[in-house]
Amino acid sequence: MQQQLEQQQQRRQHQLPAAAAGEGGPAGAEPPPKPKQQFKFCRMCGGALELVLPDGNWRHVCTQCQYVDYQNPRMVVGTIVQHEGRILLCRRGIEPQRGLWTVPAGYLECGESSAAGAARETLEEAGAQVHIDAPYVMFDIPQISQIYLLFRARLAPPFTFAAREPESLEAALFRPEDIPWDSLAFSSVSIALKHYVQDLERGSFSVHQGVIQKQPGSGPNEPGSFQLVDHVQLDTPAPAPSR
Amino acid sequence: MQQQLEQQQQRRQHQLPAAAAGEGGPAGAEPPPKPKQQFKFCRMCGGALELVLPDGNWRHVCTQCQYVDYQNPRMVVGTIVQHEGRILLCRRGIEPQRGLWTVPAGYLECGESSAAGAARETLEEAGAQVHIDAPYVMFDIPQISQIYLLFRARLAPPFTFAAREPESLEAALFRPEDIPWDSLAFSSVSIALKHYVQDLERGSFSVHQGVIQKQPGSGPNEPGSFQLVDHVQLDTPAPAPSR
Repeated sequence: MQQQLEQQQQRRQHQLPAAAAGEGGPAGAEPPPKPKQQFKFCRMCGGALELVLPDGNWRHVCTQCQYVDYQNPRMVVGTIVQHEGRILLCRRGIEPQRGLWTVPAGYLECGESSAAGAARETLEEAGAQVHIDAPYVMFDIPQISQIYLLFRARLAPPFTFAAREPESLEAALFRPEDIPWDSLAFSSVSIALKHYVQDLERGSFSVHQGVIQKQPGSGPNEPGSFQLVDHVQLDTPAPAPSR
Repeated sequence: MQQQLEQQQQRRQHQLPAAAAGEGGPAGAEPPPKPKQQFKFCRMCGGALELVLPDGNWRHVCTQCQYVDYQNPRMVVGTIVQHEGRILLCRRGIEPQRGLWTVPAGYLECGESSAAGAARETLEEAGAQVHIDAPYVMFDIPQISQIYLLFRARLAPPFTFAAREPESLEAALFRPEDIPWDSLAFSSVSIALKHYVQDLERGSFSVHQGVIQKQPGSGPNEPGSFQLVDHVQLDTPAPAPSR
């Protein structure tokens, strides 16, 4: 499948099959509204890009060589790190949301696994070596074309951490009852931590998957500004660490 | 976090912070080997791109406007569809691996959730409406910078399916003992289906996460051509459907 898709993507990047025209939705469905053109020039030949609708989705296509500049969602990976019943958070050193708290997380890079990426971000933002235990939450945020995958993790030897400037101003371990709910930077983190604390309290971790719908521009703690929908909670016998 | 990262990515796409220089790896670590330059021209201004190593990773950066053309891994979503104890597979109608069998799957599109993308691919490739139950396997394939997320699913009313040309030559339901193991198109599918059948046999589904390491160019059924490493198997009390 991976070879297929890689080659298919490569093929589609250079030539849109005629058979694809008209596909992509039920017959008679309205085409999606034309978005703002994000890119102007072809990466391959430098020709002018235009937005066309070859397969039910708007694509940036080169008017010269027909290269299709596909956009795909990006994956954000991070950790919820536990140490002696407390949770590692970082206070953001850069905008947006400078001064507010979050978990270590960032974009997955090409060539790395999601767990390796989560560990790398934790080292980069919190100066902490961690052991990754298991995937914990996977949240789609389709409005911004991102997928969040946060792993449960534990501090690894030498069990130290330190804020890394400029990304972080502080790094600290919080007891669940001391989490700064009113000073969290992002709603995805707020939802993830609420589930984590609930799972800690009942003594067993689930895996949580779902879709975050968020009002654009809203803060993480505004009532009604976001909700988790299509939430799938898979209970597992994995015991939570003792507090 | 999503806002932060979106804006951070946008910022980084236009200007590489000086503070990032020299980051990205332990002190004294060897820089990664310079890859083949994939893209030539800047999408924003049409200027010449060059490969530079600003943050421990090779990036395509515009020599004119400093735009950074980031590459990130892509997510492939699909389904393992069950109906009356049998599993829905499609026989590929296009290269590579034309004529071999696989599960419905494809790239996640911007603006859609992973479950919606998996259902869309199933309709496009197998003509089947499905109900998505839960995430089942999540495999990283870092060698090709892809993440596979396959959901457990069931045929939904009207419980029909049909091969969709040109992508599929056939679509069929297989009893676990009749799965064409020697005619599967991709190793990721082979690994996923083996776990699925094992879970069916013991009567309970796990969630499987791990990393597929694959010899480039090897077929899905060549012994030793691929392996699943760092496999995390989260047992869940969810009962498997009866056969």
